[in-house]
This record gives sequence, C-alpha cells and structure tokens, in this order.
Amino acid sequence: MAKQDKTDFVTEITPRSQDFSRWYLDVVRRAQLADYSPVKGCMVIRPYGYAMWELLQQALDRRIKATGHLNAYFPLFIPNSLLTKEAEHVEGFSPQVAYVTHAGGEELEEKLVVRPTSEAIIGTMYANWVQSWRDLPILINQWANVVRWEKKTYPFLRTTEFLWQEGHTAHETEAEAEAETRMILDMYAETCESVLAMPVVKGRKTDSEKFAGALRTYSIEALMGDGRALQAGTSHNLGQNFAKAFDITFQARDKSVQHVWGTSWGVTTRLIGGLIMTHGDDSGLVLPPAIAPYQIVIVPIGRENWRETVLPRAKELQQELMAADLRVTIDERDERPGWKFAEWELRGVPLRLEIGPKDIEKSAVMIARRDTREKQSIPMAGLATALRDLLNTVQRTMLERARQFREDHTTRVTDYAAFKDAMEGRPGFIIAPWCGNADCEAQIKTDTQATIRNMPLDGAAPAEPCIRCHAPAMAEAWFAKSY
Amino acid sequence: MAKQDKTDFVTEITPRSQDFSRWYLDVVRRAQLADYSPVKGCMVIRPYGYAMWELLQQALDRRIKATGHLNAYFPLFIPNSLLTKEAEHVEGFSPQVAYVTHAGGEELEEKLVVRPTSEAIIGTMYANWVQSWRDLPILINQWANVVRWEKKTYPFLRTTEFLWQEGHTAHETEAEAEAETRMILDMYAETCESVLAMPVVKGRKTDSEKFAGALRTYSIEALMGDGRALQAGTSHNLGQNFAKAFDITFQARDKSVQHVWGTSWGVTTRLIGGLIMTHGDDSGLVLPPAIAPYQIVIVPIGRENWRETVLPRAKELQQELMAADLRVTIDERDERPGWKFAEWELRGVPLRLEIGPKDIEKSAVMIARRDTREKQSIPMAGLATALRDLLNTVQRTMLERARQFREDHTTRVTDYAAFKDAMEGRPGFIIAPWCGNADCEAQIKTDTQATIRNMPLDGAAPAEPCIRCHAPAMAEAWFAKSY
Repeated sequence: MAKQDKTDFVTEITPRSQDFSRWYLDVVRRAQLADYSPVKGCMVIRPYGYAMWELLQQALDRRIKATGHLNAYFPLFIPNSLLTKEAEHVEGFSPQVAYVTHAGGEELEEKLVVRPTSEAIIGTMYANWVQSWRDLPILINQWANVVRWEKKTYPFLRTTEFLWQEGHTAHETEAEAEAETRMILDMYAETCESVLAMPVVKGRKTDSEKFAGALRTYSIEALMGDGRALQAGTSHNLGQNFAKAFDITFQARDKSVQHVWGTSWGVTTRLIGGLIMTHGDDSGLVLPPAIAPYQIVIVPIGRENWRETVLPRAKELQQELMAADLRVTIDERDERPGWKFAEWELRGVPLRLEIGPKDIEKSAVMIARRDTREKQSIPMAGLATALRDLLNTVQRTMLERARQFREDHTTRVTDYAAFKDAMEGRPGFIIAPWCGNADCEAQIKTDTQATIRNMPLDGAAPAEPCIRCHAPAMAEAWFAKSY
Repeated sequence: MAKQDKTDFVTEITPRSQDFSRWYLDVVRRAQLADYSPVKGCMVIRPYGYAMWELLQQALDRRIKATGHLNAYFPLFIPNSLLTKEAEHVEGFSPQVAYVTHAGGEELEEKLVVRPTSEAIIGTMYANWVQSWRDLPILINQWANVVRWEKKTYPFLRTTEFLWQEGHTAHETEAEAEAETRMILDMYAETCESVLAMPVVKGRKTDSEKFAGALRTYSIEALMGDGRALQAGTSHNLGQNFAKAFDITFQARDKSVQHVWGTSWGVTTRLIGGLIMTHGDDSGLVLPPAIAPYQIVIVPIGRENWRETVLPRAKELQQELMAADLRVTIDERDERPGWKFAEWELRGVPLRLEIGPKDIEKSAVMIARRDTREKQSIPMAGLATALRDLLNTVQRTMLERARQFREDHTTRVTDYAAFKDAMEGRPGFIIAPWCGNADCEAQIKTDTQATIRNMPLDGAAPAEPCIRCHAPAMAEAWFAKSY
C-alpha cells in the first residue's frame, strides 16, 4: 500500500448521486473511520470510527443491563465437534469458518473454529450451569469479535472479522423466550432511532432468511440513502433446538426434566456503516449528536495573530462546554478557516462554532449546523444550554428527515409489473402480499434482486393474493434490494 | 464435565495456609468468577468476574484517554510474513502462536497468526499513516483479546486466550518515547493502588526478561498472599526496532527522513487474579470497594414474614443507596441469613447491611465490614453518606494492609547463604545486589527458583558486590519466586 499524501483526506469525495458505493468508500477512508489492513477482508477501525462504536456500545450496554442482563466472556475458539452438534447451525456456518489447526508448535488433535457466533460454546456452559428452574432465566451478553469468512467485503457492512454484542438467554418457558426475543427487538429499534437517528422496520424473517438453527428470527431493517435496505440487528427465538443439541436441561417446578428455551441476539459494527449511509451527503459524514465523537468543533477565526487574540477565549469556551458534558474539540492547526470548515464537514461534526475578534466584541459566537447548514449567532451567555438545546433539535430533525425519506421510498403494490418497475433504480421498500412459499420468494429475487427483508410482527393476512403467484397471501412482506 | 450441585458454591474452600494454589482455584470457581471451558487453556469469565474486569477497564480507560490516547481496533489476524519482520519478536513469540491455515472452505495461501500482541499489524498501519513530524505522536490504545499457547494454564493468571489493553505509540524523539513509557508505568501503578488496593514495585526488567523486540521493558510487580510475585503490567520502550522492521519513517523538522521511536504497553485480565491473591482470605474473596460489582449487599433478617415486614424497607434503602451511585444488591432468596452471610463473604462484598424488625424500630441498620469483620449499627438518616465514607475507609485500609504485608515480606540481604535461606518457603521480595550478568541471573534461578522481578528506575549502583559472584554490582535487584 503506497503512502498517501495527507491532503488526500480533504480532496473531493465522489458525489453520492454519481456512485453511491464509491461515495461510501471515500467517506470511510477520508473521514478516517477505517482503513484497509494487510489481512484480506479485515479492516482497521481508526480512532474516529472507533469512538462512534464506543458511544453506541455505551448506549446499548446501559439498555442491556437495565433489562437485567449481565456481561460475561466466552472463549474465542470452539472445538469443531461442538459446532457440529446442531445440524442446521453447522450447515449454515461451516462454509464461512476459519480453522486453527496448529498451535504451540504442534498440529492440534482437534481443529478449533474461530467463533462465527457463540451458541455452541455458550450452550455447552449453560448445560453445566443450569440444574433447576430456580437457575433460570440466564440472561447473559458478551461484547466480542467474531469471524466469518466472506468472499466480498465492504468496510463496516461486511468484514471477515467484526465486533458485536451477542446476547444468549435461557428460559423456563416458550412464552418467556418469545417475550425476551421481542423485547430485545424493541430495544434495538429504540437504540437505532434514539442514538443513530436511524428509523427501522421491525418484523419477522422468512424461513429462508432466518438464523441457522433458530425457530424464528426477527430483524430490524433500515433504509440507506441509495434506497437499499440494511439488516441492522437480529433477535432469534431458538426454541429448544440448541438446548436439545447441547443437553441444557433443568428440573421443572413439577419435578419433570425439561429442555430450556433459548434466545440469541446481536448487533454489530455494521451499524456504523448504516449510520453513514443513512445521513451522509456529498460533503461527507453527517453525525447525529448522540453518536458524534465531537458534537461541537470550535474554529478560531481572525487575522494572523489569532493565537493571541482569539484562541484564549476559544479555549475558555471549550472548557465551559466540556464542563456541561458536551464533547468539544478545538482546531488549532495552522490552516485556513475554510480548509478547517471543509474537513470538519467531511467528518460530520454536528455543530461548528466560529469565534473571531468581532464575535468576542459582541459576546457571541457563530454556530453552523452540519445537517441543515443553517448559521446563527448565539450569545456567549448561556451558551452551553443553548447548544445543548440545539443539539437535541439536530438529533430530532435528523430522525424526522430519515423517517420522511423512508416514507417517500416505501411503496405498497399489489401488481407484479408495478413491483418490477418500482424495483428498478433506487426503489426503497415495497410492501406486497406474499404467499409464504420459499420458491416464490426465490423467484422474485431472481426476477428483481429484491428479497423479503421481514414481515409485520402482527396483523392479519392481506386480502390481495401473492404478488407473483396469486395464491392466497400469508403476509404483507417488506421487499427491498439489500446490502 | 459433570453437572455440579448448586451447593458446591457455598461449601468450605481449602484454607490458604493449607494449599494456596488450591485455595485460589476454589475461590475462582465458587465465587463464580470464572469456569473451565471445553477449550484447553481457555476460561469462561462469568458475570461476577467480568463485572470486575469492566470496572477496571473503565478506571483505566479514563486514565488512558485523559493522557491523550485514543482507542482503535486492529485485526485479530496477522499474516505470518509480518510477524517475522522483527527478528527478536518472532523468536520470542513463534513458539506460542496459533495459526489459522484453513478458512472459507479453502487452505489459505499464507497462514495467519492469531495475534499474540499487535506490534506487527499496528506497525504496518503506522507506516502508512505517518509522513511528517506533524503526524506525531500517534497515541493509540486497543482493548482486545490475544492468544498465546501456554503449556500450563491457571485461571486469570495464565490462559491461552486473555483480554487486555495494548497501547502503541510513535514519537519524534527517543526522549519522548522514554517519557511515554515511564508515564504509562506510573499510570499502571497508580491504577493498581487506587482501584485494586494492590501496591506494586515499579522497575526495569533485566535483558533476559524484557519484551521480545524491545529496547527496555519496565514492569510493575505485586506481591501475592503466598509471598510469590506477580508481574502486573509492562511498558516497553521499543526504540526504533519496530520502526526499522516495519519502515515507519517520517520527514523530520530538519527535512531528513527518520524512523519513529515506539512504545507499547499492556495490562491484562491477570490483574483480576492478582486482586484475588492479594486480598483473599480463608472465607473467600475480599474486594476493595472500587472494583466490587456490589459494594453493599442487603440481607433482610427476621421471622418467617420478613418479606412483608422487612423487605419493603430494605428495597427503599437499596433505591436510596443506588441513587447515591453506590452499587447495591439485595438478597431476597429463601435461605437462612447465615447461609447468605457466608455466600456474600465468599464473594467478597465489602459491606453487608443487615436489616430486621428491631433495626427498623431504631431507624438503624447493622453494617459488617468484610475486610475487618467489624460490625456497627449505623442510623438510617444520612446512611448513603456514612456508607460512602466507610467504603473509602475500607479501600484505604485494604491498601495499607497490603503495603504492610509487602513490607513485612521484603528483605534486603547481601549474603548468598542468607538469600537462599530467605527464598525457602514463602519468602516475598528479596532486594540484593546483582552484577548485571545474565549467566549469574540464571544460576540464581537454578539455585533458588527466584528471578529478578525488576530493578529500581533510578539510584546508583550499590556498594556491595553481586550476591552470588561477588563482581561489582550494577543494581539492587528485586528478586522473588513468581507466577
């Protein structure tokens, strides 16, 4: 990899309208969110991108703990014999796994799988930990790295190694497991909307799209700026499949020996990719304040002596705002203000605070919003409160705008010709009746590249017949081309 | 692995004096800190143990960020060709590495090392990121899992996979790199003392004990309850070794092209083991409040109707204390108070709060300290403040007691016969003059099992000759048997 010139990071990025995919890669590299690594399919998450992940982790971890879950840590390696215990699970994952075959100078007796997900190792432990209904529920989450060998990778959205959280729970009854699965789905949706300002559609996956080994998979699906959908999180009701494979039994209240009911659920670093593609524009990133590593960047303006005339007051303001728990940086570099403006726009900082000699005279600062590009002068008196309010407004506005975009790109059709027309170009979601048949689902994909993202959690079967085969419909499915 | 009876967790643990190693394993298992896994040498960190690690992470992460470092994430896998670039480094680590040879259904063209440490992959990235002295310093840390194939493992202290943070920095000058290395050593020492109440000895490692590829390694060394030392953290001045191996160059202020000066530093989940062995007693864990998942456990006392008479008031107190940012749990199980006392003593909770009908009448509660076993009645009015003060006292007392233990087990000797005598049994630290010769160091180890833990950071060479060979001494080395 050749050394890049530093100015690379502030040169033009490809316009979204010209090439969305190229635009995305440009933003990821030039905003220094991630970089390619010497390991095929693995990326380096750079500090600016990692800070976003940390903020998301904190927000989600609080919610995970508030609902009674505890964090733990299970081994990276899974003996191959354990992975193969659940038949569908191994079939789903084995093409994607990486194997450790040699270690400590020797060939291993049994090869080890680098975890693609941890049901097998965690199920094995739960079998030891659960004896009685009094030991249930077990509500455990882990933050970890996982590895799935991918043919085609894309920063954040699909990488060989990625970071995630995976919750694994065990329950006494089927109803409890289902309630847990749905509660987590709601938590994911709320987190995406409150923190990432990314609206999502909650629903159930079809059988062909469900997790390998699950009874039912639920997902949240977001709509990206190019009209393609992104699976943003999944929550699985595992039924008793893994309990039977790993012999996780307990003595029930009636003294009978039963298998536990399981769930698992996860969101990953892919959410950072979703965030970029939901809000970004031709100038680069646009970050919702809740996930912005810096919510405010202070750019001192002035003549050559700005370090003497402006910088001290700018630093006082930074201290004042940081004391009010705002995340603030100050750009002291020897560059033109215009150059700094462009760089911080590229990096998506929600508010730019400009301060020059005239602002100081007036005891005010100039504030520019990244999302709307509106500028306004705000008095220094009560600045922290005013900016906190403005950040809340930005957060709310961004969610509303993303909701509006999704509504503008969601169509309900009952005619297959109209369906195929709508799926050309940048279609968004299409809601259409579907018969429930996997072959029909596959044929629609072949015809249009669209897959069923998910189906409504509740609601009666639609009156109209299946969009393609005209058999009676089972559900109003949400179709889209997807990442 | 056979299913264990639940009562296993509250039966007697082996007395420390009888078998310290067995005592440690009993505490780890029965306090539910960790469990053995089906993967040789890898452990499962259970929620109670992981909560301690999270509290330590938070404390250390704050300090790492406050000193200007940013977190990032680098790939788990390192192409074998990169690991081999620094000669000493590969020689030091290759016997311990695990290799991925097959992935995605194919044999890989180049085998991948599961990172034992990340100098190689991070150095490769820094070579791309650094062009000019303006890009320096780079101050990056990552929280990650690493794998080193160990022949003999021991929960927390030495496991094949472990969790750690690893800082990797690049600097313009040798002096800056050295200052960083020493600053981090101070940060580690302060964290161990403030958070874990575990006093440490700061010093420099001998050449035979330094990190593979480093110029100089500094360490902090703690003294465990059995008189053996534990290396609790290391900070390495890498000099220009890795910069030369990975071609990390920059244009200096004088326009010449130079190699950066590097550092790396890390602490691991082993610190949890150190914590256990520093403070634990025959009843189990004793936790300093700063690292205790629960600082206070409330045990309701009373007749059979305690759920009606006592529990409501107990829950109010819990809410009140939690609102004051104390970590509090309440034991509502249908068990005798005495059974609960023993269990929470085993789990090391710093304060037990007993509340019964008589306490409620008196508007007071009974508080028992885990560290001293003192009991006192404390009025409910102002309880949060009183308990916060008491927790601070416990934290301070535990550090003082551990310091005293170390002083009582540190001997200065100048005679080899006295040295050998002192190293029999459970000796602690011995400070003794050493010539600086690696052969002499090795012979002392052969004779006594003692190794040089580290040497003072500053101070003149001692007047006395080397304890073993009587050549002029280079330093007053700290010897101990170690984990």
